[in-house]
Amino acid sequence: MSEKIDVQGPDPERPATVVRSTNVQFQSSFVSRDKRGKVLGSEFRGCTVWFTGLSGAGKTTVSFALESYLASRGIYCYTLDGDNVRHGLNKDLGFSAQDRTENIRRIGEVARLFADAGLVCLSSFISPFRQDRAQARRIHEQSGLPFIEVYMDTPLEECEQRDVKGLYKKARQGLIKGFTGIDSAYEAPLEADVVLKTAEKSVEECVAQVVEHLRKRGILPYSVVKTVRELFIPQDQLAAAIEESATLKRVHLTTLDLQWVQVLSEGWASPLSGFMREKDYLQCLHHNINTRQGSVNQSVPIVLPISGEDRERIAGENAVLLVHDEKPIAILRDPEVYAHRQEERMCRQWGTACRSHPYVKMMFKAGDWLLGGELEVLERVRWDDGLDSFRRTPNELLSEFSRRGADAVFAFQLRNPIHNGHALLMAETKTRLIARGYKKPVLLLHPLGGWTKADDVPLHVRIEQHKAILREGVLDVDTTVLAIFPSPMMYAGPTEVQWHAKARVACGAQFYIVGRDPAGMANTETGVDLYHADHGREVLKMAPGLPQLEIVPFKVAAYNVQEKRMTFFDPARKDDFEFISGTKMRRLARDGQEPPDGFMAPEAWKVLKAFYQSSHASKS
Amino acid sequence: MSEKIDVQGPDPERPATVVRSTNVQFQSSFVSRDKRGKVLGSEFRGCTVWFTGLSGAGKTTVSFALESYLASRGIYCYTLDGDNVRHGLNKDLGFSAQDRTENIRRIGEVARLFADAGLVCLSSFISPFRQDRAQARRIHEQSGLPFIEVYMDTPLEECEQRDVKGLYKKARQGLIKGFTGIDSAYEAPLEADVVLKTAEKSVEECVAQVVEHLRKRGILPYSVVKTVRELFIPQDQLAAAIEESATLKRVHLTTLDLQWVQVLSEGWASPLSGFMREKDYLQCLHHNINTRQGSVNQSVPIVLPISGEDRERIAGENAVLLVHDEKPIAILRDPEVYAHRQEERMCRQWGTACRSHPYVKMMFKAGDWLLGGELEVLERVRWDDGLDSFRRTPNELLSEFSRRGADAVFAFQLRNPIHNGHALLMAETKTRLIARGYKKPVLLLHPLGGWTKADDVPLHVRIEQHKAILREGVLDVDTTVLAIFPSPMMYAGPTEVQWHAKARVACGAQFYIVGRDPAGMANTETGVDLYHADHGREVLKMAPGLPQLEIVPFKVAAYNVQEKRMTFFDPARKDDFEFISGTKMRRLARDGQEPPDGFMAPEAWKVLKAFYQSSHASKS
Repeated sequence: MSEKIDVQGPDPERPATVVRSTNVQFQSSFVSRDKRGKVLGSEFRGCTVWFTGLSGAGKTTVSFALESYLASRGIYCYTLDGDNVRHGLNKDLGFSAQDRTENIRRIGEVARLFADAGLVCLSSFISPFRQDRAQARRIHEQSGLPFIEVYMDTPLEECEQRDVKGLYKKARQGLIKGFTGIDSAYEAPLEADVVLKTAEKSVEECVAQVVEHLRKRGILPYSVVKTVRELFIPQDQLAAAIEESATLKRVHLTTLDLQWVQVLSEGWASPLSGFMREKDYLQCLHHNINTRQGSVNQSVPIVLPISGEDRERIAGENAVLLVHDEKPIAILRDPEVYAHRQEERMCRQWGTACRSHPYVKMMFKAGDWLLGGELEVLERVRWDDGLDSFRRTPNELLSEFSRRGADAVFAFQLRNPIHNGHALLMAETKTRLIARGYKKPVLLLHPLGGWTKADDVPLHVRIEQHKAILREGVLDVDTTVLAIFPSPMMYAGPTEVQWHAKARVACGAQFYIVGRDPAGMANTETGVDLYHADHGREVLKMAPGLPQLEIVPFKVAAYNVQEKRMTFFDPARKDDFEFISGTKMRRLARDGQEPPDGFMAPEAWKVLKAFYQSSHASKS
Repeated sequence: MSEKIDVQGPDPERPATVVRSTNVQFQSSFVSRDKRGKVLGSEFRGCTVWFTGLSGAGKTTVSFALESYLASRGIYCYTLDGDNVRHGLNKDLGFSAQDRTENIRRIGEVARLFADAGLVCLSSFISPFRQDRAQARRIHEQSGLPFIEVYMDTPLEECEQRDVKGLYKKARQGLIKGFTGIDSAYEAPLEADVVLKTAEKSVEECVAQVVEHLRKRGILPYSVVKTVRELFIPQDQLAAAIEESATLKRVHLTTLDLQWVQVLSEGWASPLSGFMREKDYLQCLHHNINTRQGSVNQSVPIVLPISGEDRERIAGENAVLLVHDEKPIAILRDPEVYAHRQEERMCRQWGTACRSHPYVKMMFKAGDWLLGGELEVLERVRWDDGLDSFRRTPNELLSEFSRRGADAVFAFQLRNPIHNGHALLMAETKTRLIARGYKKPVLLLHPLGGWTKADDVPLHVRIEQHKAILREGVLDVDTTVLAIFPSPMMYAGPTEVQWHAKARVACGAQFYIVGRDPAGMANTETGVDLYHADHGREVLKMAPGLPQLEIVPFKVAAYNVQEKRMTFFDPARKDDFEFISGTKMRRLARDGQEPPDGFMAPEAWKVLKAFYQSSHASKS
């Protein structure tokens, strides 16, 4: 850990301000600026996005959508347009050639001030002349500020057809003179930074295109752009890595450890770039966040326990090789070994002193030391169990959602068979999103696929059951992506539900469904629930470092005996409802019985029944 | 807890953005804006601070200092001045009367845009004419944006004497024509919002004056302004409150509860306005923060345990009366009763399963339910133990620091006698601050005065010892304020050290000294330290919601037998050092012996010796 205090030298003109190196966050409430007000120690430095195009080309629509996109991700923006400039700063200007040039010159200067202040300035004016736009660009470049010219390449016919303000009509009638595109020239950019074909693309696609450009230019901070950094070694460096591997001391991974390597390597725990160091571990246990890059939710430790012997054996090494069943998995760089302190971890992570909790028990048996360090993973983790095709990485899922044209992704985490109560939550969420104006909300149906306790339904059975649900049309195939979330289950209640939500941000989910008692279980000693049934939802709603995600909380669903289907429980008519517990469901299935009508899709029930009647199912 | 999801209606022009009602933070990375880019759901909405005055009057100096003050508190600012406006936006303007007016007009318009974008725009121009400034004000007021005119009331002679840029000299020589104050008029404001007499006041005082104005006008958010909201009932409402009290059901406070009432009522736990509700409690246990007003560190629960009988007795009440020894203490409004869940609290707050920990033990004995609600406190809590004069509220301390002309306040928390190792940390901190340009750093010597475990040195003995330290000149009386921090001690290590730091922000500390193992103790069952000695410091350095405070971490000090004084421990020369433990110190004192030379001021040692030789000291 850094002992350094970041202290700026005294400056007679202003009192010292200080940025703590350990706590610098993007859009932090503790930022230092240089004399021109630019934010220092922040990832983002300000720029101007200059929209140009005909009246009706979509400048305002796209700039507002972009502003909304950026603002919701913590980027300060400000849009300059006719409304706030023509009637104010430039109200002394008319529409002569000279005044038009002066209009654009001033806007360029003001945009530069906003960019200099550390905002994204969105400028939304026809700005028809190349020379004027070139001047605006020059003004920025002289100040070292990025200037992005975005050409709204919308055909005149399209603009004229839209004619939102009725101006084209007036211009054609000769009521407006010197109207750009009609009787005044528009000089299309020859080398615009971004060209938006608004006639062919949706507003969201246009926004995505600008964001992608900002991302490629390195203008937007990591937290804003939706690709996830994977920890795999690039193909061209693989041979050298394998050669190096042979020279390294080895540390053996359990299968559980390997699941965590998979989680880390695919980017689910971004920005973690390896097993947690002690600073990450403390931050996670105490504050449920990680501040390596901005302030990002990270509620569960992702750590590699090792024994005291391993600790001594690797002391002084610059890198070690992680192996599983003698197979090389990853190089861990710059190892840091620190105390596991299991009792403290049990208490802070699970909020319980129950040592027979299944994950806690494993944790105590694992090593007394933790090995932190950056990971370079040799190849993608595969399990060869026939389910690897469902184990899609965040980047693969991002592509899939894009391919499907999703304008909203909502995620549903589960580790149990799907009944119609779950389906109700998912359908209801979709309805709400459509009512809010989304055109294609896509569901990420995302069962957890790592370690679970012995009496949970095994992954392969759950996947069969989920596939049956899709086959039977309970969920819409076209707008549902079924994939496996490779994380182990920790049964840590409100602490873990944050992890389940956060990991889904990595793969593009903006909405996360949370019901009752997520990630909870009963105390294995007392049989009493470890967590209050509402706390997972409430803690998640307040979770720090999850700004990109909207939590969609639900009341519990139960079997409505009157309506013979699952509906939201209404305490006022509680006699109409029957709660079908997991235990009851298991008993019915084992006995080869049928659940009440409308509880679960029949084909899906068959899958469960077959499992519980087989010898593999636990007898609990 | 609110079940509401805050969903904005669909707007065809832009995708819906959403503010989660439970997680809106000032300068949050998740803000929604209206179409003009103004930040919604934030406490702060933007304004313009317009400095006017002669050349050399101090506009730039004060505006930069103000910018630095605000920026370090998370307020986005931008300064407009000659440097960034005259050579850019207004480079087409000369110095004719007309151009000067147009110059100021445009600056007014640009300032309005910045204020509209949600920033504090600091405008720093001579702006000599009333009419021009009035226009700038009008431009703002028409947009509903606050405009604060700050008159730099510096005599011409003073400005001319400063003559930083040598302009007055040139003007007197006739080399510059139309120079304001020499051969061009300056029209002093008749009704400026703030008048700064820079010839008589320091830059810091000027900044404080502007900030105070912004605070009074309600422009700056709570988090920025340094007065603390107390929970006492105003004098004129007291009679009515007492009358109401007689009608309320009573809940009895223990002495420990009363200490927490004191903490809450004086504002140490701002912005908590009463005993925690369940939402506050969960947030505290899981994330160590409170988001009632911005995101503020709050690592320890401040809760009121009650019994199941009390819970039933007060069910349905709109308010209850809290009494201590039958004395009415406070009205608690809108009571919310929720489960205490002691085991979970023990684990999450203390990170231990050790139930014989002294505070944990009390906690389990206290009620199974917690009573949350807003407090209206009838009168200040007094203990009549001869030490009340040391129990100064945050607001009293703020005044005291101001009276002493402190430009930096650094706090030292302790619950033990002061030895020269502590004094070394404090002296070293002062030296560092002076090296950084602070002129009068003041030390808040702030022993904890609430409940402590039986074998800690009692408060009255510690205060006597601290007074002896001051008498002997180990600490400088003029720059040290000795006061009592009324909080109980929880012995919760890294979790509690955040509380100790956060509470000192309330009384104006910008720097907090943290050494080894703060707030830690040994496990009462195993004798092993509950917390890693470095974790308190490390967790504090990363603590969320403490942006105003700089943590000053120190290595351990030990007795240097070569130099015969306390110095920072150097592991390379460890034979030169002796660690004098609390146990050893107690034994020496009890046996009437002297510690090594230079360990503690002799008069202070006498106080300790007298205590340990008396019958009151615990025999441990």
